[in-house]
Formats: sequence, C-alpha cells, structure tokens
Amino acid sequence: MQAEILSTGDEVRTGAVVDTNAAFIAEALETIGITVNRHTCVGDDLDDIAAVLREIAGRSDMAVITGGLGPTADDRTAEAAARAAGVALEEMPVALEQIERFFHARGMAMSTTNRKQALMPQGALVLENTDGTAPGFRMTIGACRMVFLPGVPREMRPMLARHVVNAFTQPHRSDGMVHVVVVISTFGLPESVVGDKLKDITPPNGPLRVGLRVLFPEIHVRVYGQGERLETLAAQMRQLKEIICERLGKRVLSTDGRRLPEVLGGMLMERRATLAVAESCTGGLMAKQLTDVPGSSGFFLLSAVTYANEAKIAVLGVSPETLERYGAVDEATAHEMAEGARRRAGADYALSTTGIAGPDGGTAEKPVGTVCIGLATPEGTRTFRYVFPFGDRDLNRRLFAATAFDRLRQYLMGTLRVNGLTE
Amino acid sequence: MQAEILSTGDEVRTGAVVDTNAAFIAEALETIGITVNRHTCVGDDLDDIAAVLREIAGRSDMAVITGGLGPTADDRTAEAAARAAGVALEEMPVALEQIERFFHARGMAMSTTNRKQALMPQGALVLENTDGTAPGFRMTIGACRMVFLPGVPREMRPMLARHVVNAFTQPHRSDGMVHVVVVISTFGLPESVVGDKLKDITPPNGPLRVGLRVLFPEIHVRVYGQGERLETLAAQMRQLKEIICERLGKRVLSTDGRRLPEVLGGMLMERRATLAVAESCTGGLMAKQLTDVPGSSGFFLLSAVTYANEAKIAVLGVSPETLERYGAVDEATAHEMAEGARRRAGADYALSTTGIAGPDGGTAEKPVGTVCIGLATPEGTRTFRYVFPFGDRDLNRRLFAATAFDRLRQYLMGTLRVNGLTE
Repeated sequence: MQAEILSTGDEVRTGAVVDTNAAFIAEALETIGITVNRHTCVGDDLDDIAAVLREIAGRSDMAVITGGLGPTADDRTAEAAARAAGVALEEMPVALEQIERFFHARGMAMSTTNRKQALMPQGALVLENTDGTAPGFRMTIGACRMVFLPGVPREMRPMLARHVVNAFTQPHRSDGMVHVVVVISTFGLPESVVGDKLKDITPPNGPLRVGLRVLFPEIHVRVYGQGERLETLAAQMRQLKEIICERLGKRVLSTDGRRLPEVLGGMLMERRATLAVAESCTGGLMAKQLTDVPGSSGFFLLSAVTYANEAKIAVLGVSPETLERYGAVDEATAHEMAEGARRRAGADYALSTTGIAGPDGGTAEKPVGTVCIGLATPEGTRTFRYVFPFGDRDLNRRLFAATAFDRLRQYLMGTLRVNGLTE
Repeated sequence: MQAEILSTGDEVRTGAVVDTNAAFIAEALETIGITVNRHTCVGDDLDDIAAVLREIAGRSDMAVITGGLGPTADDRTAEAAARAAGVALEEMPVALEQIERFFHARGMAMSTTNRKQALMPQGALVLENTDGTAPGFRMTIGACRMVFLPGVPREMRPMLARHVVNAFTQPHRSDGMVHVVVVISTFGLPESVVGDKLKDITPPNGPLRVGLRVLFPEIHVRVYGQGERLETLAAQMRQLKEIICERLGKRVLSTDGRRLPEVLGGMLMERRATLAVAESCTGGLMAKQLTDVPGSSGFFLLSAVTYANEAKIAVLGVSPETLERYGAVDEATAHEMAEGARRRAGADYALSTTGIAGPDGGTAEKPVGTVCIGLATPEGTRTFRYVFPFGDRDLNRRLFAATAFDRLRQYLMGTLRVNGLTE
C-alpha cells in the first residue's frame, strides 16, 4: 500500500514549529508495512490544502492529514477536503455530541466557535478524539482513503494508534491475506553488522521479510509476514524471532519495538529499583529521556548536570585531586561522579557520563567523541571509556546517553558484571 | 518571492529521522522576507526527486533542496536535478578540488567513491562545503532558482547561512531596491497583545512592514524594509526599532533575533557571573537549553534534576518538613530548591522550577500548568507562582523554563527586584 502524509498549518510552513508529526506517522505506517512515498506541508490556505489533497488522491492509496481542525477561522482543512472531494460541508451530530461531551466532562459549556468543529465533508466518518475538542474524520477522495487528524501531537498520536495503526498491528486480514508485523529493537551493533548477521535468514520467496531501520543510535529489525493462515504464519514468525534474538543476543533491547530508555525504565520498575544520573557532556539529555518514560517518577531520582568542575566537587563529592590529576574526562572522574550521584540520591544504581561531544574541545589524546561512563551498583562500580567516530554534538550526546543506559541494562540482564569478570 | 523546500532521503521519508532541516530553512527564509509555500519530502528515488523538482520549477521562484549529495549509490539528487533540467551530469573541477582539499586537510586520500560527489548538472554553480565532503550547487530549472545542499544539519546550516541567507540579511540590493530586515525577540506577552501594541505603528503604504512570528514561547517582531536609498531606509528602521522597543519595554529580549537562553547567557558572561539550576518538572530542559548556548561552560555550573523528594532533600538541602507541609509544588519548596542549588554549586545566581507539566497530576488546587519558580541571588531569594492554561506537557515545560530564565534576565536588567519592592 502506497501512502502519503500531509501536514497543514502556518506554524509548520514558516518553520516556527518542527513538524514531528510527519516522522511519527511515517514511522508508524512503515513499521506496519505501509510504504510512505511523500510528505508535504502547506500553510492554512484553503486553496493550497485542497490542491494538495487532489494531487494525493491522484497518486496514492492512503493518506494521513494533520492540522487545521481547530475552531478558529484559519482552521480550514475540513472545508478543503470537501472542496477536493466536490461535496458540501454538513454538521455531523456524532461530532457535535463528542465536542459537547468533551466540554461537559470538564464542567464547561461549549462555546459557539467550537460548533464549527462538527462541520465535516458529506459522507465522512467521524473519528473520536478523547484528548481534545477536534474530532477527526475519514473519507475517500478518488481512490485514496484519507484520515484527517488534529495537529496537536498529544491528540494526534492516540488517534493514529486507535483509528489507523491498531487496525494493522494486530495480525489482520486485508486483500484476503493475513498480515503480521514484529519489531525487534537493538543497540550496540552498526547497521551493517546487524545486516550481515541476519543475511539469508529468510528464504527469498518465503512468507516473511526482514528489514532494518536506523533509529539512531538504535537499529530496529522489522519482520513482516503475509500468508493465508494466521496459525501457520504466527508459528513461522515465532521461530524466526527466536533465531534473530539468538543471533543478536544481548544487543536485543525488546521484541515489541520499545526503545532503550523505556526498556531500562521497565526493568528498574520491575525490580522496584531506583536510578540517579550524573551528566556532564550529555547536558540534561539523560534526564530528559528518563523523564519522558511513562511512570519515570517511580524509578528516576536525580540527574546532576554538573558542567563545572566545582559542581562535580560540591554536588557529587568528586575529589579535586582526581580532577586535577586526570581531568574531567577520565574514567577516574566518571567513577567518582557515579558513586557520588548514587550516594547523594540514595539510589540503587547510578550512571555518569563525562566526555567531549564536540564540535570543539577535542585533543589528540581525547578527541571529540570520547566519553567515560561510570556504572555504580550495590556490588561495586565499574567504568568504561569509548571513542566514537562522530564530530556532531547532537549525535554524540545521544550515543553517549544510550551507551550509558545500555551498560546498566546489560548489568541488570546479567550480561555485564561490575566486579572481577569482564563482559 | 515564493519559495519551496524539498528534503530527500529514505531516513526522513520513513520517519526514522525527524526532518529538522525544513523548519530551519523555512525559518531562515521567512525571517528575511521570503515566503515558504510548501515543504515536500521524498525518499532516495531518482524518479520521485526529479518529478518533485519539475513540479516546484512550475510553481515557485526559489527552492532549497537538501540531501542526496553523498558518495553512495543511493545519493541521486544531482542526477535527478540534471534529469529535471534536461541536461547531462559533468565532473566539476572546482567541486573535485574542494573534495580533495577536504580529505587532504585531514591527512587522508580521497577515495574513488567520493569522486562521484563532483558530478553535477551542466551549468550548475558549485557551492563550497567547509564541513564535509559534499559540495552543494545552484542552478535554475525553468524560472526557479534552486539551491542544493547536503542533508547533514551540521554541514547544511553554515552553507545556508553563507550561500543563501547572508545574501539577504545584510542590507542588500535586488530588483534595483535595497532590502533591510530587523528581528526583535520578545517574551512575556501573548501574540495578540504584541499585535495590539504595534497596531498602526507603520503607515500602510510606507517602506517598512511589521510582522509577528510565534517561536513558542517567544514572539518575534520582524521589521522588513524596502527602498531606494540605504541611508534613508536605515534611519527609518532605527527610528521604528526604537518605538517598538519603547512600546514593548522589558519584554524585549534582543534586537538581533537572539532567543532567551542565549540572551541570558550573554548577560551572565558579560558580568562574569555563574548560574545553577534546580529542576523538577522541566526534567533537564533548562540544562539542555543552557548547554546549547555557545560558551555555556563559562557561566553554567549545575543543574540538579531532582525528580524525587529524597533528591530534593539530599542534594539541595530542602527540608523534609517543607515538603511534608506544603508539597513539592509550592513556593516554599521552590525557595529552598533555588537556595540549595546556589549554595551547593557556589553560583552567583540560581533558578528553580517545580510544577505540574501534565498531562496528568493536576488537582483542583494545583491544576496542570501550575509552576513555582525560585530566583536566588546574592541580595536574597524571591519566588513566583504561575498557572498557565496549557494541558500539554511539552508546551508547559518550555514555558516553565522560559519563565524562569526571564525572571533572572529581568533581575539582571533591573526591572525586577528580589527584596521589598515588586515589579
């Protein structure tokens, strides 16, 4: 199936807001085996939106459109859809009722401007929005099935899951066939190595296909199956999943597509264990990624972003002698930072990062991409030193953070020890 | 001038990477008065890229295209441009020399695969890339001026500045007229209020036009002027800038487009003063924004992301009684957090945030959007409490962080005091 994505709104068109919806939707669709051929973004202009909808209708089987469903005068997507389809707008009682219910549940009366949000193209099917006032809708223009969702990511994402992706992620039938998708997330091997390890794992004309996706710094393995009988397909899929997990071993993060911070958070919550972090070069990124995990307040106690040596000393108890003798980017410093964070927060585990993310600050001895990581546990503390080949600050920060998280993940899995034995 | 943006690459098409280039380019072009009508993204497919280039050539005056200039087989943008223009590819000696120079400067020999990067459409003008191996190029297809840049943001951004935006941001001549642009960044007033205050500030048919851009949570005022003589225009612009600054007063962050974290960092560096931060609900965002400011290691000492009450007590010295009596989201707690961060880091100033970013966790007394902010200074500590009307976690975090930064900015400017007198 060939799909397209359209984002509407002047705030995206003018670059005031980065369009994260397009990538989110593309990733969701690609993961379930739908090919996304093109993304387009236009502003709040009625003619522009209608023109792009007509273009898409002539090219693709499916489209997801976001934005322009709000109550104000510059929200014109429903009108544009009606124009592109050559139908009139009509007030949808189901939509009106949802909007009224939304306000009622919050003890408010619906304002008359919100009534506009119940206007949809004739023949459209209303899609419920439980997190906002703008219902979505579904309709066919030409031969293209189009799904219209609000642009606010917090509202769009659950609607996409409920109204679009859920229909695909469970084993499902379409065109008389059963379709199954499994995503295995990995960290720690380059794409080319993962590819080599899985080469020839599926016979060329069999029912299963394996693809790789780079979600830096993770590599996700997507297995897509298509067949006539669900039982047969599911058994083949289970077997292939086992082989993949065996070949990739401890590099496998999850077999349900979850990414590293969420996997680590889940492991900590299962164990009722807590984590503290001492960050230098990652500058708050580890804190950000941990606090983005649902339920993070259950395991995440502290991140001390200690940019300055004085803060490393005062907050984490790093000794001035260590900093003087070895410098801030050293395993000895990472060791004391991790132990200091663990002690200071009273956490079960602590991670520290200190490195040179770039683009400047590298030396011959400690080039850009160097990071020292500390892992403090009740059993003891271990440190690691890596030099990654990137000159890019953002890439390095993400890689440093993931590498630190993965050290603790592997320790909790039992594939990494802190005392005596090595990996 | 009507422009479009095209991003190419399978990693963007499939959503593995969020396309930040499109917003960056759109913002740069809009800021200098070029209207961006549409963004498009397609994958590494030769036919797709060529087709979109032809569409753009038929619609717009100008386009910026990113991606697909690398050395590998799936980098096909130059070939697609040649096809769309109906010309052949040829090896450009200037480009080849730049690539060789890039490798030579790093003590490496150019590999034969990189030679491909010197192949460009006949008649194209080579644009230098000082940060990578892929030179860009410029050419006209139909009546559309197209600029082709690499997709790596670290390489693309300086090239956009040098080859595209610089030609516009300095007062410049085109079509026989002089063009001047000034951007005044503001924080603390809603868009509608800024709009009201600047209403009727320019006569309808005069040489200067004023526009607003929302870069949440900031509002940027863009003044664009066009005239025959630079001296006259510059004098009119200076006068208007003064009037705008007078009307918006302490809400003005900068008259050169710099945003709040950078403005605050600059003020601290000027004073050789240092800052520590205690974050709860902002979860590392303040640390992230501060460490993104060039030269931040000169003023930024510490952020303690203290999610847990235990960490607030152990790391910041917040008293358990305060937390017990008032809770984590309270001015009393914010007060002790800020003082603790300042003391612990030995910083001149400290800011703290504790609040409810949502979407969950709100109560009738402390709804989602509530934040308490502490500002600790050598003169004393002051706290603030706000309730913002957003239910969105990301918006609230950004607003909480900016509000805290702005408290310190205003204190340093003298428009806010910590002792006795109020604003």
